[in-house]
Amino acid sequence: MVTVTEKVRFVETDMMGVVHHSNYFRWFEIGRVDYLKQAGVDLLQLFNEGIIYPIRDVSCRYISSAKFNDIIHIETEMAEFSRAKMVFTYRILNDKGALLATGMTQNVFTNAEGKIIMLPSQYSDCVNEFMAKQKL
Amino acid sequence: MVTVTEKVRFVETDMMGVVHHSNYFRWFEIGRVDYLKQAGVDLLQLFNEGIIYPIRDVSCRYISSAKFNDIIHIETEMAEFSRAKMVFTYRILNDKGALLATGMTQNVFTNAEGKIIMLPSQYSDCVNEFMAKQKL
Amino acid sequence: MVTVTEKVRFVETDMMGVVHHSNYFRWFEIGRVDYLKQAGVDLLQLFNEGIIYPIRDVSCRYISSAKFNDIIHIETEMAEFSRAKMVFTYRILNDKGALLATGMTQNVFTNAEGKIIMLPSQYSDCVNEFMAKQKL
Amino acid sequence: MVTVTEKVRFVETDMMGVVHHSNYFRWFEIGRVDYLKQAGVDLLQLFNEGIIYPIRDVSCRYISSAKFNDIIHIETEMAEFSRAKMVFTYRILNDKGALLATGMTQNVFTNAEGKIIMLPSQYSDCVNEFMAKQKL
Repeated sequence: MVTVTEKVRFVETDMMGVVHHSNYFRWFEIGRVDYLKQAGVDLLQLFNEGIIYPIRDVSCRYISSAKFNDIIHIETEMAEFSRAKMVFTYRILNDKGALLATGMTQNVFTNAEGKIIMLPSQYSDCVNEFMAKQKL
Repeated sequence: MVTVTEKVRFVETDMMGVVHHSNYFRWFEIGRVDYLKQAGVDLLQLFNEGIIYPIRDVSCRYISSAKFNDIIHIETEMAEFSRAKMVFTYRILNDKGALLATGMTQNVFTNAEGKIIMLPSQYSDCVNEFMAKQKL
Repeated sequence: MVTVTEKVRFVETDMMGVVHHSNYFRWFEIGRVDYLKQAGVDLLQLFNEGIIYPIRDVSCRYISSAKFNDIIHIETEMAEFSRAKMVFTYRILNDKGALLATGMTQNVFTNAEGKIIMLPSQYSDCVNEFMAKQKL
Repeated sequence: MVTVTEKVRFVETDMMGVVHHSNYFRWFEIGRVDYLKQAGVDLLQLFNEGIIYPIRDVSCRYISSAKFNDIIHIETEMAEFSRAKMVFTYRILNDKGALLATGMTQNVFTNAEGKIIMLPSQYSDCVNEFMAKQKL
């Protein structure tokens, strides 16, 4: 599991006084980027090599509302990984340990033209190794 | 089914050159607001009466990417409705009829303090009537 | 002057109950895109030809708050135009004619590498012609 | 001067491959919130006491583009302060010390109904003291 800590921004709230539900997917993305970075995969480098990673499926369950100024912890785990796709799961917690939301996202890999490709093994090896270490 | 037509904004794109996946939930919201408005339920009025409608669950499947300047059609249907919750389903299509995404959201009703409440019948009656008309 | 009409989205509000100030620049962008489209300049086409139009300067004065569900009119005018830059001014009004905000943005033109270029005359001619017509 | 360090989020980019200009105002807000917090003024507490702080004027000059994954430093200074308004100035720099943007925002204070008020002296005293310390 990889954890990123963020602070809720004022702009992330809506007139209900809590964070707008769409923003949790933006937090999941922060967690995903950091997980891959820690695994040795820099998404910017991938992008510059013409490897794109569009999202295919997402879901989120909201349990308790995040509020302005809250410290939140984004916990990210790889639930399923192959050279064809990545399934991540997430948990958002506040500073008191309360679970705010859980979620899932699935990416695939494509070339710049949108055609499905296999992630080059130099990258998948990194991720597999990182996942193995995580399980120890 | 209620359809709202929008145009993809430049700001909705990301560096992949397509609309960021989180924005589809913002489009679903536009559809949901309009569905309820057509059913006679003004969310702003509800809000001003202290009736809040937080999101509990969402999901989206992405089929084809929306791009800057695309005309998109947000099709919204009520899949399940009671005085305790609303489940909406959505389809996003572009101007050529291509299906870009499908999604689901579930709202509950609470008071301003976040306690679950029943939607007052004056509103649920409106929705039930509208749903009945839709099926004709 | 070119006018685009939009409806305030729920997500555009913040916990103050009004539209977050950053979103006005997203509305200005809608107005700018439409102005250029009406002048015969499709920004997507420009982009696909490797002509980029980064923003250099912006400002906004907020007079009265836009609220959820408000119908807003985005009035866009070209204040200054050359093949090197575009200065647009904007007015945001609600449906009752109240002025909500005024603003300004300045774009320059660059190639994909970020080097300043002159807008090809096929495009600047379109804009000059459109501006001339607007003044009649 | 108060400095906050952030990392550019993927969602903050647009199809030009750089951060959308509207997002700089969201970064300025992060800087402003932190400046006031360090001065002993918690905006959430103010809000809960019915003191609102709408934005009246903003501007930004963009010098160099922020990109995905960039580490950015948001430098915030109070340029002018009274119990009636706050004028902040900002500088955004990347990790190599390059200046990306400069900006200004002006807030006023109102009650929940939008009427202009004076910031209670318990808060303005905090800010004045903090400003004095900053100058040492």
